[in-house]
Amino acid sequence: MKSNENSDIGGHIGSYVIDGLQYANWSEKVFRQMREGGVDAVHVTIAYHELFRETVGNIEAWNRLFEAHPDLIVQARTGDDIRNARTDGRTAILFGAQTPAPIEDDIGLVEILHTLGLRFMQLSYNNQSLLATGCYEAEDRGLTRMGREVVTEMNRVGLVVDMSHSAERSTLDAIEHSIRPIAITHANPVGWHPALRNKSETVLRALTQTGGMLGFSLYPHHLQGGSDCTLQAFCAMVADTAELMGVDRIGIGSDLCQNQPDSVVQWMRVGRWTKKNDFGEGSASRPGFPPQPEFFRDNRDFPRLAAGLRSVGFSQSDIDGIMGENWLRFFDQSFVAKS
Amino acid sequence: MKSNENSDIGGHIGSYVIDGLQYANWSEKVFRQMREGGVDAVHVTIAYHELFRETVGNIEAWNRLFEAHPDLIVQARTGDDIRNARTDGRTAILFGAQTPAPIEDDIGLVEILHTLGLRFMQLSYNNQSLLATGCYEAEDRGLTRMGREVVTEMNRVGLVVDMSHSAERSTLDAIEHSIRPIAITHANPVGWHPALRNKSETVLRALTQTGGMLGFSLYPHHLQGGSDCTLQAFCAMVADTAELMGVDRIGIGSDLCQNQPDSVVQWMRVGRWTKKNDFGEGSASRPGFPPQPEFFRDNRDFPRLAAGLRSVGFSQSDIDGIMGENWLRFFDQSFVAKS
Repeated sequence: MKSNENSDIGGHIGSYVIDGLQYANWSEKVFRQMREGGVDAVHVTIAYHELFRETVGNIEAWNRLFEAHPDLIVQARTGDDIRNARTDGRTAILFGAQTPAPIEDDIGLVEILHTLGLRFMQLSYNNQSLLATGCYEAEDRGLTRMGREVVTEMNRVGLVVDMSHSAERSTLDAIEHSIRPIAITHANPVGWHPALRNKSETVLRALTQTGGMLGFSLYPHHLQGGSDCTLQAFCAMVADTAELMGVDRIGIGSDLCQNQPDSVVQWMRVGRWTKKNDFGEGSASRPGFPPQPEFFRDNRDFPRLAAGLRSVGFSQSDIDGIMGENWLRFFDQSFVAKS
Repeated sequence: MKSNENSDIGGHIGSYVIDGLQYANWSEKVFRQMREGGVDAVHVTIAYHELFRETVGNIEAWNRLFEAHPDLIVQARTGDDIRNARTDGRTAILFGAQTPAPIEDDIGLVEILHTLGLRFMQLSYNNQSLLATGCYEAEDRGLTRMGREVVTEMNRVGLVVDMSHSAERSTLDAIEHSIRPIAITHANPVGWHPALRNKSETVLRALTQTGGMLGFSLYPHHLQGGSDCTLQAFCAMVADTAELMGVDRIGIGSDLCQNQPDSVVQWMRVGRWTKKNDFGEGSASRPGFPPQPEFFRDNRDFPRLAAGLRSVGFSQSDIDGIMGENWLRFFDQSFVAKS
């Protein structure tokens, strides 16, 4: 892949920097901060509760961004597209959906959306979906009939199953049913911080045993101490998880929602499924986006993560893996069709 | 490209055989006949009056055909995909739309559909569209405001402007406004057979002067003598048109509608734009598909076309061009994005 000789922790010359999930209010400012932070690739959310035609509208909006900022960003469909973006000094953008709403009730849309560049899809968000159960439901009945069919189709075309917001049994079902490794693009171990969105040791073991990947979240509701979490505590958690999962099965999935108004977190949580307010991980007194921890405010702070990983004892080659090369290897295996 | 040493008129070893338009009732039988006829590539119509979501459904149906018959057909997006299909012994399938209905009122859908594989789009069918006038309208006001914008966008992404069913002034406008050569994928010179769908010398001259292509139609309503047209008369018309346009700007665009029930020709003509019946090129007494001429019944008859071209005096290299290599060269220039 790359030579480590010129490594410079977190800088452009060093590790690949790949973020396993973001949902920013995309703008030239954010893209320039990505370049400043040395970010080579980002999995961006293009849809929450949007149905197919709405998702296509979101892709159209991305196409305009690609046309407007060809010096800063480029769409990626493969690992090699990311390598080329890095050579060009651009940030590669990978599309993902946080719910299966974009495929509606139509398995044929899996291939259509893959052709349009979708590379990740969550089988469920916080609620029950047509495919699986979300982490906020009281009952988790695992993968549905359609869920099993869709996982098989996602496996065929090269669309990564993402279970970040899914409930435990559904997640274990997906890991078992999928013939390709799956991902939890943005979550942390529940033992470190008890949140419905964080994952049990059982899930993390099953994930790593099947070659899957975990992206560590920097969203305050997933962090020990919330917005007051320290870099030291975060990196110590990464080190503990590396013990559990292996240092090559982990990466970053920051869940950064930069510059988004609070109306967006409401859309994420409420969509069109209720007329009431649902505060999800927030509360009536703190309904909006929580402030980012001091050590990771935006895309310019990736070098600080790399430095933090070094300070807890990771080797340069481990840091290269966690900051991006583990994701890159996973993408190489995951995005190509299987016959 | 290819060596002519092994040329065998119309056979698999000889010319590339590329058909500039078909709308068959697709089935394994038709695909096997394509192989039998040595057909390397076909531009297939995937939509007439279908809006975007309906067109996506049609692409989904094609994806199932590709999955079911990987030994016979493969989707093509570039000229090289056609070369690879020929090497594999498969027929390459290129998508096209006969009306601009699939993009609805949304210029962003041009790039979306191109990403999904669309390579040709007519700006108007028989009626006025949002973009241009069709050949059955009494008044032709040329390209509309949106029409000019869409042609520019089609030029950018590499989607070929097809004016087969458009009215004269609109066609001349499109030829002038487009910065890339356009195509009339399926029509004949109106001087040979007076039909609203056939094209004037003015149009054919403007087309060839800008590097565009004409595909000769074998649909009986476009033929001198209709279903009784002879191979000799058809090939003599090709020779005359080669004099006018040059032998490298012409190909075949058979307009073959194999095994389609008459309800399909009604959908083509009537869509959802009228509650009455419109017989288009047919008539109340002959509302259905006319019988194919004896010399071109289906995809197995391409070798007969090649033989017919030889009999009117074309050289082998001219025949290679008309049977497919002219289209292949045009596709190489036309399908790639231009920045």
